[in-house]
Amino acid sequence: MTAAPTPAGGGLPAGPPLPGGLDTPCLVIDLDVVERNSQRMAAAMSERGIALRPHIKTHKSVALARIQLVAGAVGLTVGTIGEAEVMAKGGVEDIFIAYPLWASDPKAERLRQLLEMPALRLSVGIDTPAGAARLARAIGEPIDRLIVLVEIDPRYHRTGSDPDRAGEVAQAAQAAGLHVSGVFTHGGHGYAGIEASAVAARDEVEALRRAADSLRRAGVEPEIISAGSSPTAMGAAQPPVNELRPGVYLLGDRQQVHLGASPPDGVAVAVAATVVSDAVEGQVVLDAGAKSLTKDAPAYLAGHGFLPAYPDGVVERVSDYHGVVTFPEGGDRPKLGEVVAVIPNHACPVVDLFDTFVAVRGGQIEGRWPVDARGRSG
Amino acid sequence: MTAAPTPAGGGLPAGPPLPGGLDTPCLVIDLDVVERNSQRMAAAMSERGIALRPHIKTHKSVALARIQLVAGAVGLTVGTIGEAEVMAKGGVEDIFIAYPLWASDPKAERLRQLLEMPALRLSVGIDTPAGAARLARAIGEPIDRLIVLVEIDPRYHRTGSDPDRAGEVAQAAQAAGLHVSGVFTHGGHGYAGIEASAVAARDEVEALRRAADSLRRAGVEPEIISAGSSPTAMGAAQPPVNELRPGVYLLGDRQQVHLGASPPDGVAVAVAATVVSDAVEGQVVLDAGAKSLTKDAPAYLAGHGFLPAYPDGVVERVSDYHGVVTFPEGGDRPKLGEVVAVIPNHACPVVDLFDTFVAVRGGQIEGRWPVDARGRSG
Repeated sequence: MTAAPTPAGGGLPAGPPLPGGLDTPCLVIDLDVVERNSQRMAAAMSERGIALRPHIKTHKSVALARIQLVAGAVGLTVGTIGEAEVMAKGGVEDIFIAYPLWASDPKAERLRQLLEMPALRLSVGIDTPAGAARLARAIGEPIDRLIVLVEIDPRYHRTGSDPDRAGEVAQAAQAAGLHVSGVFTHGGHGYAGIEASAVAARDEVEALRRAADSLRRAGVEPEIISAGSSPTAMGAAQPPVNELRPGVYLLGDRQQVHLGASPPDGVAVAVAATVVSDAVEGQVVLDAGAKSLTKDAPAYLAGHGFLPAYPDGVVERVSDYHGVVTFPEGGDRPKLGEVVAVIPNHACPVVDLFDTFVAVRGGQIEGRWPVDARGRSG
Repeated sequence: MTAAPTPAGGGLPAGPPLPGGLDTPCLVIDLDVVERNSQRMAAAMSERGIALRPHIKTHKSVALARIQLVAGAVGLTVGTIGEAEVMAKGGVEDIFIAYPLWASDPKAERLRQLLEMPALRLSVGIDTPAGAARLARAIGEPIDRLIVLVEIDPRYHRTGSDPDRAGEVAQAAQAAGLHVSGVFTHGGHGYAGIEASAVAARDEVEALRRAADSLRRAGVEPEIISAGSSPTAMGAAQPPVNELRPGVYLLGDRQQVHLGASPPDGVAVAVAATVVSDAVEGQVVLDAGAKSLTKDAPAYLAGHGFLPAYPDGVVERVSDYHGVVTFPEGGDRPKLGEVVAVIPNHACPVVDLFDTFVAVRGGQIEGRWPVDARGRSG
């Protein structure tokens, strides 16, 4: 690897300003940028008449979810029962677990406990007749409070029913006693690049259109037709889609800027790190490594993060607690002891490494806020 | 990617047996294997007259550290002040922070608090004269209780002084009032493959020999000459090395087996995962993704983990909560709802994702034990 390539999205991420006195490595989130991102997405969806149900697996914070709800989100999307438990306990009343749950005994017990919360509207994903049957059997009586949506594969080929056979899954679910409210999809193949994002958005819309037809043919009316990912959000915001579930847009990251899904000044998150060594020539070493930045590195980004103050630096290698940053010959570089911001390649797994984040507003520390659902991966 | 290549170490990792009723994804650690690994390494070092100071960043558990100390370890190695705080609070009395600390104000305050614990013997790394001077200035009075070791670069080129100039760092540290007790190194380049491990072990020994000479020329006697990593441990266990700091050997992982550093039956750790979807043909999807397995994948291992029960399966892609496992045509595969063990490629960052682990003995659950120092990355 040499220097970081110019991002396809047309700009270099700026990232939040760092307050002084930080104990590194730590996660910093700029609340001004969070609020701006939150309002921007809510306005864009409102203009298009589309419900916004943001995915909170990116930030896992009840307080940040509240900002999204205040800005106009109709409810939240989560990826796990653990995230649903944390958000429900935090007072959120409309939660969709956008995941094809397999209702094992421990999972069914936890779902039943959630269904006992009288104010909570809970919906979950299914993608096979067998999964639906198991869910209905395992839940038992509180089944009339559980809403299900059929997951559709939009050619991402991860999970989800074939669009044209979604009606079969819906029918099996209804036969088992579940209330089917619609269909959902996730065009994750849009993360492959800026052109792939446009293709994936079209794939989401097309797959959902076919799936909705398949449900109708099976006698099930799809009230909710839900697409979702930050890179595809704008492209997929068109009929018959009536709900969107983007997540990373709230914090932004290096990948979103590259994909054109976040403006360069739309990145609210950084890992603050200190230069701990310049003993080896031609590089400096940060105290943020794989346990702070992860090894998540899409092929189109050089290195494991981006230093806005030193844009020629490449976080070439990470080990658990070390990030080795190299520079072109003669390039400007931070000094021993200096604290720098590192924009993560991908915010979601990075936030999940920290129990708390430093919430800043106007460059000042507002507090240390919990990453409430950290580690709630099941 | 196609099938997983035959590991260079000559065997397929077996991994712990899974008890029934697990709520997945979860981390499972087999205490029988932990104790066997612990005793095996302690015996090997004892035979060679070398002190064992295991690195606990792999497991981050006070209880597992106790097993290592009971088996004969002279003290612990940690990578961060946060890990030192947790272990010291857990009653451990000899801790080496094998990291070139930069004593920022918050870090210096935390070091001072550790130095106030009367029973604790605390040592830390330095690798530049500037780092040593800063450390001494920032610590102030309790400096006479702080021991430092000079980190040496063994051609891994991450951190560490040039071996022949280590005496300059030691002298600067002494001049600043620090007590220098020796030199240490980490041949991380041994992770590149089985032959690289042998080279890195020789590099560690050679670098430490030269560094010890450099200290002596500077008038500083190196009492401790410390090498460290699991793949290089046996190769580096020779004079003048008198201390070793392997870490991963306790739990083992897929990488260690490939490198020949762990026997196939020496892997104590697995992530238990459930098949949640078989909706897309030719694959199954597990509920363990990047937030349970990480994306840590050395070039010599196919995929993001290994399924001992389905050795032809490849964990081809991971997203946050999904692991997509592919199989050769007609290959045996797990059923929807089945719980499988996944051996992680690299145990250290995986363990750091979980707040607790399921401790098993003889296939039975002994308890849910805390990963005490989880997330203590600074």
